[in-house]
Amino acid sequence: MVFFMKICIIGYGTVGRGVVELIHKKKLDVTVVGVCGRKCGVYDEDGIDLGSLIDGTKDVGLDKYPGVRKDIDANKMIDMKCADVYVELTPTNVVDGEPGYSFIRRILSNGCHAVTSNKGPVVLYYNELRKLALKNNVKFLYEATVGGAMPVLNLVRENLRGNRVASVRGILNGTTNYILTRMGSEGAGFSQILKEAQELGIAEADPAYDVEGVDAAAKAVIIANEFFSRDAHMEDVDVCGITRITPEFVSLAWKNGFSVKLIVEVGRDVLRVAPRLIERNHPLCVDGVLNAVNIKVDMAREVTVVGYGAGKYETAGAVISDILSI
Amino acid sequence: MVFFMKICIIGYGTVGRGVVELIHKKKLDVTVVGVCGRKCGVYDEDGIDLGSLIDGTKDVGLDKYPGVRKDIDANKMIDMKCADVYVELTPTNVVDGEPGYSFIRRILSNGCHAVTSNKGPVVLYYNELRKLALKNNVKFLYEATVGGAMPVLNLVRENLRGNRVASVRGILNGTTNYILTRMGSEGAGFSQILKEAQELGIAEADPAYDVEGVDAAAKAVIIANEFFSRDAHMEDVDVCGITRITPEFVSLAWKNGFSVKLIVEVGRDVLRVAPRLIERNHPLCVDGVLNAVNIKVDMAREVTVVGYGAGKYETAGAVISDILSI
Repeated sequence: MVFFMKICIIGYGTVGRGVVELIHKKKLDVTVVGVCGRKCGVYDEDGIDLGSLIDGTKDVGLDKYPGVRKDIDANKMIDMKCADVYVELTPTNVVDGEPGYSFIRRILSNGCHAVTSNKGPVVLYYNELRKLALKNNVKFLYEATVGGAMPVLNLVRENLRGNRVASVRGILNGTTNYILTRMGSEGAGFSQILKEAQELGIAEADPAYDVEGVDAAAKAVIIANEFFSRDAHMEDVDVCGITRITPEFVSLAWKNGFSVKLIVEVGRDVLRVAPRLIERNHPLCVDGVLNAVNIKVDMAREVTVVGYGAGKYETAGAVISDILSI
Repeated sequence: MVFFMKICIIGYGTVGRGVVELIHKKKLDVTVVGVCGRKCGVYDEDGIDLGSLIDGTKDVGLDKYPGVRKDIDANKMIDMKCADVYVELTPTNVVDGEPGYSFIRRILSNGCHAVTSNKGPVVLYYNELRKLALKNNVKFLYEATVGGAMPVLNLVRENLRGNRVASVRGILNGTTNYILTRMGSEGAGFSQILKEAQELGIAEADPAYDVEGVDAAAKAVIIANEFFSRDAHMEDVDVCGITRITPEFVSLAWKNGFSVKLIVEVGRDVLRVAPRLIERNHPLCVDGVLNAVNIKVDMAREVTVVGYGAGKYETAGAVISDILSI
C-alpha cells in the first residue's frame, strides 16, 4: 500500500484553485482531504473528488458548490488535524498579516506542517513562526513568497548547501520590470505604460504596492531573515520606487550599455530597494515580467536564477514543490 | 554527541584539494578518514589532520607527504568500508571512464554512498550505475558533472519537484563561451583568441575537447538520461563545435541583436550541441566564462540558472553540496 500525504487547503482563490487543478491534472501522490473558503469548507477524509470540485466551483466559487458545508471553516478544519500539511493561501496582507498569520500559528501549534504563498505572515512574523515550527518539530515552507516559480529560498537551502551567502541582489517584482523594459524599448513615459499594464492585467488597479517598491521590500525582508538570520521588518528597508524614473533617463542609460531595473539588495548590513543601472550583459539584466536573483556565496562564487515571479500556475507550482518536499 | 559523517576522498588533484581545503576552512561537520592518490593513501579512522595534509602536500603531492602509506590505495580503502560517503574525484575520461568507473562500481556494490565530479563514468555508464545504487539502497550523486558550481541536476530534482521537464537548452562550456564572447566584442578571429585563452589557462593545450563540443556533448548525455530517462550515449549526440565560426558571422549576428553561443539542446527526442543565435536580451545570453541553463517545465514555465561551470572551489563546492545532502 502506498502512503499518500494528506493535505488541506485554506483559501480557494486563484492560487488555491491552481494548486487543486495541478494536483488533479498531474495525478500527484497527494490526497486533498479539505478545502476551505472564508466561511465554508469541503471535507472528505478519503479525499475530495477534485474533478467535481473544479467543475462545480468554476464560475460560482466555493460557497455555491453543492458539496460545501457551512459548519466547517478554516479554524475548525485546522483543529480537526485532518491533514499532514496545511496549505495556507489566503490573500497577502502586509499590514497585520491576517488572516494568514493566525491560521499558520494554529497549524504549527497543532503540530502540523504549513506551506504558504502568503508574504504577509512571513514578512511580519518570520522569526516567531520559524521558532514555533522548530519547537513543534514541523516544517514551515514559503518558497512561493519570494520569486514565485523561481527557486530562491530552497535553492540556497538545498542546492547551495554548505555555502555562506555574502549578498543577494535581484529583480523581484515583474510589474515594475515590465514597465521599465517598455520605457526602454519604446521611450514612452511611466504613466502611459502603467495605464497599459493595468489594462493588460500586469499591474493592479492600485499600483502603489508594486511601483513604490512595497512588494519588493517585503521580499527583501524575507531574504534578510532567511539568509542572514536577521530580525528585519518592513520599516528597516530603505525603499525608493520607480515613479520618478523618466524615459530620458532610461534611454540615456541604454545608450551607455545599461538598463534601469528596480533592484533589491540584501546583505548582512544592507536592506534596500531602489532603481539601479545594470549592465545589459549582466545575468541580472532580464526583461519583461521576468524576475532574477543573483546570489554571491563563498564556494560557488555566484549563481543567478531567472524565472517567472507570478502567475496562477507558476505560484501554485512553487507551493506544490514545497508540499512534495515534506 | 554529534554524529559527523565520515568521508573518503579518491583522487587528490585540483578538485580533491579544493574539497579538503573547503572542509577544513569552513569547519564543516564532516570527518575525512581517508585520502587516496594513485598508489598511496592517508588514513586515520578518527579523522585526518587536514591542516597538516594541506601544508604537507602543497608543492610535492600526496606521495611525498610524511604521513602517507604505500600499502593503501583506492581499491583497498574502498573495501575497508571506512567511510559513509566515498568521493570519487579522479580525472575525467570519456573514452572508457576509468579509473573512476571501477571505483564507483566498487563503492556502490559495497553499499556505500558515492559522489563524483567525474563526467566519464556518468556519461558512459549512467543507467548501470543508477541501478546499482538503487539496488544497494545508497545514493549516487554527480551535480558537479553538469555546470560545475551552477545547480542543474539537483535544481530539478529538489527545487522543481513535481514539475515535468519539457526541454533543456544551455551554455555548458565556459571555454567556448569565453572565445565567442571575445570574438563578438573585439572582432578578432577564432584561432587568435583561442591562443590567448590557452595562455590565460582558460583553454587546454589540446582544445578539441572544448571547441569541438565534446565536453558540452558529455553534459547533454547526462541531462538526457537524468531528466528524460533516456539511454543516451556520446554517439547519439548531434555535435557541431565552434571552430568554423568567423568574426564576420559573430559581428553580423550582433548587429541584429543576437549573440552566437554554443548551445546544448536536450529533449525527449532531441540531443544536440551546435552554435546558435541567441537574442541579446534572452536570459541564456550570458558572456565570458559563465554557463547558463534554461529549463522549460510544466508548472514553473521556465527557469534559467546562471553560474560558473568550472574552477577549483566552484567544482569543489558542488561536490560538498552533494556530500552534505546525504
